[in-house]
Amino acid sequence: MEALNPHSVLVTGSNRGIGLELVKQLARKSNPPEWIFATCRDPEGPHAQDLKNLAAKYKEIVIIPLNITDPSSIRSAVTMVTEKLSGTGLNLLINNAGISKFSAKLEFEAPEDMAEVYKTNVIGPMMISQAFLPLLRKASEESSEKGMSCSKASIVNMSSHAGSITDVYLWELAQVASYRCSKTRPRNHKGTTKNQGSPKSNVAALNMLTRCQSLAFSEVEILCVAVHPGWVQTTMGGSMAEITVDSSVQAILNLLAHLSEKDSGAFLNWEGKILPW
Amino acid sequence: MEALNPHSVLVTGSNRGIGLELVKQLARKSNPPEWIFATCRDPEGPHAQDLKNLAAKYKEIVIIPLNITDPSSIRSAVTMVTEKLSGTGLNLLINNAGISKFSAKLEFEAPEDMAEVYKTNVIGPMMISQAFLPLLRKASEESSEKGMSCSKASIVNMSSHAGSITDVYLWELAQVASYRCSKTRPRNHKGTTKNQGSPKSNVAALNMLTRCQSLAFSEVEILCVAVHPGWVQTTMGGSMAEITVDSSVQAILNLLAHLSEKDSGAFLNWEGKILPW
Repeated sequence: MEALNPHSVLVTGSNRGIGLELVKQLARKSNPPEWIFATCRDPEGPHAQDLKNLAAKYKEIVIIPLNITDPSSIRSAVTMVTEKLSGTGLNLLINNAGISKFSAKLEFEAPEDMAEVYKTNVIGPMMISQAFLPLLRKASEESSEKGMSCSKASIVNMSSHAGSITDVYLWELAQVASYRCSKTRPRNHKGTTKNQGSPKSNVAALNMLTRCQSLAFSEVEILCVAVHPGWVQTTMGGSMAEITVDSSVQAILNLLAHLSEKDSGAFLNWEGKILPW
Repeated sequence: MEALNPHSVLVTGSNRGIGLELVKQLARKSNPPEWIFATCRDPEGPHAQDLKNLAAKYKEIVIIPLNITDPSSIRSAVTMVTEKLSGTGLNLLINNAGISKFSAKLEFEAPEDMAEVYKTNVIGPMMISQAFLPLLRKASEESSEKGMSCSKASIVNMSSHAGSITDVYLWELAQVASYRCSKTRPRNHKGTTKNQGSPKSNVAALNMLTRCQSLAFSEVEILCVAVHPGWVQTTMGGSMAEITVDSSVQAILNLLAHLSEKDSGAFLNWEGKILPW
């Protein structure tokens, strides 16, 4: 993990689950980033206490309030981050924040839920990436490193295998449409591809966004990937999930340390395996 | 094309382009459907005159006002169609309506445009399919035919090769983000996969929705496919497009005539070639 050495990192949705663990493990590195911007919607709310406790221990962690669906909140966050970086760029942007909605079969999927989940899990990462693009570009341009890497300039979109149109991961028991629509982790055992279904179009959309970002930003050498963290034991993943948040995040950071331009635009799982679209 | 013999068909966005041509060719068949429900947002508006002229010639064509993003408009349309069918089901639902938005590079893509195009091109077809599901199910249940077909019970989503995450069709010159986001036809020559890009996530999302519909509705034997009509010479496709609307629609109707349960969930071009996700 020491091979991953960005000067600055920003993680959205970092008050719990995978986001919080990413911030924790980055801060505990023997060579931590100088700046770890940990964003969450409500740093003063009851769900941010763990993050505040963590930030009190590590001077690298800067908590930034950020609602990824609100343009004015995004502008404020960019201003705060830019001030802290005082002229340097942002190396690594991890779009981790996302929501899920419970609903029944596809037949009864609510259009409002579809729209809200898309807004948060697809349009949100697009807006965040647009807003931080000048800082990412600066990091890339001012680096003496050849090629692409997550230490130099990178956008990492936390996706889900549930977004694979080919594999239709964990289908059978995870019938809840909005939950599958989100880019987050499904709750259930690996199922076969039959029975009542639900649209996972938003995850497919996030993967498509990642692929487009990789093409759009290749000229400025910003590495863009979508990462499936596994079925992780978080509040969202539930207690039946297969891996701990600690081991998922360890694997993800190890993966990020070894990515290069040949990986840009890929959809990888936490172990680095290429997943089908 | 005579092998395609549904008792009833509904085509959304049928006042021009591919939708209008589908209605025309269906009505001109030697064995036309008894009912061709041709929907459009504003049948009394200036853009519906061609459809009205066509409907005046063929008793099978019934014009139905329908805004696919408006639940109350959808309910009214279902009521009208149900009355006409007087107890029989709907065999073939063609989700053809869609919009496109002009915008610049991915870097400047407007979140409002992303949301509006998703609402029309993905959530719209989902809502229409939900609303007409009871009539599609009735058609399937009351058919004596074994297996699945577009004559028995089917949802056809008009998609675009631009939604293939693998192929990133017509990339180079078609940089306009919202345009590529839509499920409609890109304007330009076949390009290579480089340079500035734009998210085509909504088309990927429509393909994912189709795949989920095929899984969700397989038990009730409703065939669900996504069809790419080619780069067609319509108002949207522009004059540089490769095929005429007449030949695209002929090929599509010929394709629909030959689909069976083995094709459900697939993403096909107008010639029946399977496209990658």
